[in-house]
Amino acid sequence: MAYILSVEDAKKIAEKLNYRHNGLVTVIAQDFETNEVLMVAHANREAVEKTLTTGKVHYWSISRGKLWLKGETSGNYQILKEIYFDCDLDAILVKVQQIGAACHLGYKSCFFQKPENLKNG
Amino acid sequence: MAYILSVEDAKKIAEKLNYRHNGLVTVIAQDFETNEVLMVAHANREAVEKTLTTGKVHYWSISRGKLWLKGETSGNYQILKEIYFDCDLDAILVKVQQIGAACHLGYKSCFFQKPENLKNG
Repeated sequence: MAYILSVEDAKKIAEKLNYRHNGLVTVIAQDFETNEVLMVAHANREAVEKTLTTGKVHYWSISRGKLWLKGETSGNYQILKEIYFDCDLDAILVKVQQIGAACHLGYKSCFFQKPENLKNG
Repeated sequence: MAYILSVEDAKKIAEKLNYRHNGLVTVIAQDFETNEVLMVAHANREAVEKTLTTGKVHYWSISRGKLWLKGETSGNYQILKEIYFDCDLDAILVKVQQIGAACHLGYKSCFFQKPENLKNG
């Protein structure tokens, strides 16, 4: 079961956030069962509202300049289970059920690179 | 015990990162024992090097425009235990021993605000 809010509540929440990094907030996705950090990306107000009303995590793709439903092409959706906002209201933590891999390279988490990979690479 | 690298290795790693968000990478701090996400902030190349060579997490404070050793005024240092880099090399996950609270409001984690707080607030 996804965590879903009404359009009215979603709008109330989305309008209170501080989109201060070029109109965006930072979004961290964490596995709701293992607490593994999966990825970090950004969201604009529309993406926040869509996430809350659909129960599937949406981002703003900076590189493509468009709304991005995570999994829209890969099928690797992030089902929203819990959501938290930080003290400054400019960052969001979404706890999700990750369908498949979060990383486009096939890894469960994007944070798979260790110092050894970089210092020797 | 903090995770510490030599200056040479720290420089090799720091030079490979993509500081593409206004010269910064995103840094997520996570409790190394509980996996609780504590905060998210940013780092420039100098902050990455300082983190790796001192074993205490350093950020770049966007609001103050300066290098920021987390805990330098509060004593709430973040002792580096593990570090991971994401697929795009523009985000870092630091697993830390958090001394005291991560949040300047006294909460262990900055992500203490629930939807209920915002939609009724």
